[in-house]
Amino acid sequence: MNFKHLTGLISAPFTPLNEDGSLNLSLIPEYYKFLKANKITGAFICGSTGEGVSLTTQEKKDVAKTWASCTKKDKDFKVMMLTGGTSIADSIDIAMYAQKVGLYAVSFTAPYYFKPANAKMLAACCKEIAAAVPEMPFYYYHIPVLNGCNVPMIQLLHEVDGIIPNFAGIKYTHEDFMDFLSCLRFNNSKYDMLWGRDENMLASLSLGSKGAVGSTYNYAAPLYYDMIDAFEKNNLATAQELQQKSIDMITLLGKYGGIATGKAYMKLVGVDCGEFRLPVKNMSASEFKSFKSDVAKLGFKKFCSVKP
Amino acid sequence: MNFKHLTGLISAPFTPLNEDGSLNLSLIPEYYKFLKANKITGAFICGSTGEGVSLTTQEKKDVAKTWASCTKKDKDFKVMMLTGGTSIADSIDIAMYAQKVGLYAVSFTAPYYFKPANAKMLAACCKEIAAAVPEMPFYYYHIPVLNGCNVPMIQLLHEVDGIIPNFAGIKYTHEDFMDFLSCLRFNNSKYDMLWGRDENMLASLSLGSKGAVGSTYNYAAPLYYDMIDAFEKNNLATAQELQQKSIDMITLLGKYGGIATGKAYMKLVGVDCGEFRLPVKNMSASEFKSFKSDVAKLGFKKFCSVKP
Amino acid sequence: MNFKHLTGLISAPFTPLNEDGSLNLSLIPEYYKFLKANKITGAFICGSTGEGVSLTTQEKKDVAKTWASCTKKDKDFKVMMLTGGTSIADSIDIAMYAQKVGLYAVSFTAPYYFKPANAKMLAACCKEIAAAVPEMPFYYYHIPVLNGCNVPMIQLLHEVDGIIPNFAGIKYTHEDFMDFLSCLRFNNSKYDMLWGRDENMLASLSLGSKGAVGSTYNYAAPLYYDMIDAFEKNNLATAQELQQKSIDMITLLGKYGGIATGKAYMKLVGVDCGEFRLPVKNMSASEFKSFKSDVAKLGFKKFCSVKP
Amino acid sequence: MNFKHLTGLISAPFTPLNEDGSLNLSLIPEYYKFLKANKITGAFICGSTGEGVSLTTQEKKDVAKTWASCTKKDKDFKVMMLTGGTSIADSIDIAMYAQKVGLYAVSFTAPYYFKPANAKMLAACCKEIAAAVPEMPFYYYHIPVLNGCNVPMIQLLHEVDGIIPNFAGIKYTHEDFMDFLSCLRFNNSKYDMLWGRDENMLASLSLGSKGAVGSTYNYAAPLYYDMIDAFEKNNLATAQELQQKSIDMITLLGKYGGIATGKAYMKLVGVDCGEFRLPVKNMSASEFKSFKSDVAKLGFKKFCSVKP
Repeated sequence: MNFKHLTGLISAPFTPLNEDGSLNLSLIPEYYKFLKANKITGAFICGSTGEGVSLTTQEKKDVAKTWASCTKKDKDFKVMMLTGGTSIADSIDIAMYAQKVGLYAVSFTAPYYFKPANAKMLAACCKEIAAAVPEMPFYYYHIPVLNGCNVPMIQLLHEVDGIIPNFAGIKYTHEDFMDFLSCLRFNNSKYDMLWGRDENMLASLSLGSKGAVGSTYNYAAPLYYDMIDAFEKNNLATAQELQQKSIDMITLLGKYGGIATGKAYMKLVGVDCGEFRLPVKNMSASEFKSFKSDVAKLGFKKFCSVKP
Repeated sequence: MNFKHLTGLISAPFTPLNEDGSLNLSLIPEYYKFLKANKITGAFICGSTGEGVSLTTQEKKDVAKTWASCTKKDKDFKVMMLTGGTSIADSIDIAMYAQKVGLYAVSFTAPYYFKPANAKMLAACCKEIAAAVPEMPFYYYHIPVLNGCNVPMIQLLHEVDGIIPNFAGIKYTHEDFMDFLSCLRFNNSKYDMLWGRDENMLASLSLGSKGAVGSTYNYAAPLYYDMIDAFEKNNLATAQELQQKSIDMITLLGKYGGIATGKAYMKLVGVDCGEFRLPVKNMSASEFKSFKSDVAKLGFKKFCSVKP
Repeated sequence: MNFKHLTGLISAPFTPLNEDGSLNLSLIPEYYKFLKANKITGAFICGSTGEGVSLTTQEKKDVAKTWASCTKKDKDFKVMMLTGGTSIADSIDIAMYAQKVGLYAVSFTAPYYFKPANAKMLAACCKEIAAAVPEMPFYYYHIPVLNGCNVPMIQLLHEVDGIIPNFAGIKYTHEDFMDFLSCLRFNNSKYDMLWGRDENMLASLSLGSKGAVGSTYNYAAPLYYDMIDAFEKNNLATAQELQQKSIDMITLLGKYGGIATGKAYMKLVGVDCGEFRLPVKNMSASEFKSFKSDVAKLGFKKFCSVKP
Repeated sequence: MNFKHLTGLISAPFTPLNEDGSLNLSLIPEYYKFLKANKITGAFICGSTGEGVSLTTQEKKDVAKTWASCTKKDKDFKVMMLTGGTSIADSIDIAMYAQKVGLYAVSFTAPYYFKPANAKMLAACCKEIAAAVPEMPFYYYHIPVLNGCNVPMIQLLHEVDGIIPNFAGIKYTHEDFMDFLSCLRFNNSKYDMLWGRDENMLASLSLGSKGAVGSTYNYAAPLYYDMIDAFEKNNLATAQELQQKSIDMITLLGKYGGIATGKAYMKLVGVDCGEFRLPVKNMSASEFKSFKSDVAKLGFKKFCSVKP
């Protein structure tokens, strides 16, 4: 199977929630248009940013169906769904649903309670899900900081190559550039290696990455497209300056408690996705006030995504 | 609320699976009788040993219903269900089902993808589930090696005491004896502290623990009851010798790849629960042969659980 | 070689420093008498508590000589010296010096920059130092939380038994009771297993430990002797209560920043050892005031060590 | 103070040892000429590669004196010495000796038994050593994988800037490119940020790094200079290919047990530095044979350093 390589910035959307914590599906069509207006090329739904792990299976299906529905006429916008949880049976169920509603691809991350002992066991897990949707591209989602699976991806590629026909690539959310470069070059660059650490995308570009999946592309896509453009014109000083701006923005995530800060940024760009569910901590009102002041100091208005 | 303290050995049953990986619910009534014949006082179902994380929500409910059905006339045998996954909504759903079919108690462990940042956030998670089944005892399941949540339990007790009326205690699967003793003594020993590390139960007895939940009580209950008896008669040399026997038995779990070895032990006592699901690795046929030989050297027959 | 087993409480002395950070050797004879008055049976010098790692080789020798000098007529008081650093050559030099000045035993901990890859490599290191002082008992110091060496001690015993004639035992500063019991029982309890976690000594007694090395025995020996006494009389409720008192005392170490808190306790019992050297953080004056108030609430006066 | 920025490849030399493990100082002049012939711009002695932690203080001084002696007329070749151990007093002693014999700079890494609790404590340690040699450039050596000190370097720069006049920069042996870029840009790029991960130097170039310190520059300098050249000519495909070659070479370090493999490479380029001291494991003769065969497959001859 020979899938088209994905390129450009793919957003990992937040899952919009109402004030009572229930799904706010009605925001999704607007969210999609917002991403398109900012040249985002696809969406990775129900991932970490999309807090898929905090949704029920039925809720994940509802999210999938809504994204499928509003993007179905747009063949250039690729929607990929994370199926992974700790139950392979659940993942297969969700993968098949993603296929049924017409999403472009599925993704899977290593089970994070019992963990695969090695690349062979991880490949065995991937194989079960990929085999359930043989016509869809399958992407492994590498995020050891959250799933605790430290198998090097070059080992996984060796295990799946020639064995899982629809294995299309890896969303790589880790800092092992040695492993990343080896994967990029594996078997004549056969696999899509989608960079997943927004704060050091510039480094990934120097190694040859062509596509990225991330959460800050939800609200600061122009910044990254400017950086890519500067890099391609070999204007490294500008690219470095823009990467630093991205770092300053991401540093505020740490300062304000982590992933939930992303939904706070979304409020600032006018796409209010609500709050995160437990166990994630959200900002208090006074923290949000202080956050807004910090964001203003960044000059966020100059590089943030804008509504159409 | 004032729950009766649980005492003695509570088994964490394996979930019986057929050769094709589907649930083998028909074995459960026999499994229950086997445990009763070996003086087990309760069952902690769908936990780590019961590979709850690898089951779908529906499958967990099916397991719950079957255990409820075959134990409903036995008020001395307490069945507790682990509801925990990463989705609080799922946990509440399962807790309410456990209540509906008449199980004794529910348990919950910290979400293990996004992790609670501190005791306060962990208590907030517990509160949501406990509040859904206010008439049932609620037990927190502390197992940092698997869920990655390192909040000391004495901090959790401070957060929930007086706040969650049906908080009944903790299944404590960790080696922090300092924390464990402080929890045991907290508020006049108000809470049940169920020891969860079979390989050092003797040490927990010296600190005053009265009940334990574990996987090796499934197949070696007589060994532990003999040890408890020796301890209570202040016959420490015998108790230490028996604890060493338990350690030798548990050392084989490490040698043969971990948790799946438990199901191999079950085959030897005649209660065949099948194999573990992915991502857990099972023994090969030749490993099983070697395992049986090692088990024979232990003198397993002399202290294993026996069928009625 | 058949060494006498060490029993009772062995103190790990703080190294007395002057206000300018230089060695205050003149305090050592008084320190020794203080320990004796509180029934301490030996001293483990230049260990973690003694901040040996922050001393120069010459300073370690000066400390060794001073302890040797003031204890040489007291054959019942055993002084053991930690030789370990990251350089085996340095360790051998110090071990030979310890022998020359007449100390009882030497100890060694795994190098903590480059780390031994397995039990075999760790045993190879031990062998070099032990062979330099073949007449002295050699004790391995197991403290993975500081040296990062996670080799199970039962594996080390298998590697050294019959190979290192003067291997006498292990100072065990870790919570792996499974490993500890197996070591205690190894080869007919041939080796001394000295417990090194004061906060859960009671659990170690139930497993059969007879001696302990720790820092809180410097200033609260009566508490622990009362606990041992209660345990030996099978008065577990009292033993548990005393262990809790020890835990409350140790909890203040965490609250006030760690190991330097020990020197603050020493000031309260009238043996002023000064402050810790960098990189350890000492209390500020206001923290010390707050600390004293917390200590008073513990009822420290009732169980602390007292000057003769 | 305004130090000249270091550029190009700085080697971290192995410490030459004789077969009996003693220092082989006589090889050092030849080693220096070998590095010069391969355009190496300096040497970072007694670091991790130089196994400084396994040497005695006197041995470190002997190594320092020998390097100073053979490089003293070469002002373009900068020798920097790692002073760090766990004793600040030792580090000061060594720093002053380095100054006395005329080395260019000193370096220091966080104590690795007791660890600095935060950036402030780490800065306090740096200050003591830097103040002892106020005329010499002082470089912090950031290598959390070995010293366990995870303080972000941007925090350290904030603590030392304006406080330690001779703080000149950081040897950065870690993969946190976000932190690295922020340090590079700190205070108008005031500080030297020397890259320390040979396997992903290409990524560091894209962020603007101008100098690097590493172990593989000892034996494969031409490979890296070719890569830098390709990068500067914006020929990324070639640069990526050369970085992959470096990765393949470094992958053999993992395969053959780690750091000692570096000395095996040195044998292949004709500069025999002997073996590593304990606790490091060296290759067996049969492993060395297999290693040589793997190295041949890499085409090592085409890019390795060559004798003058």
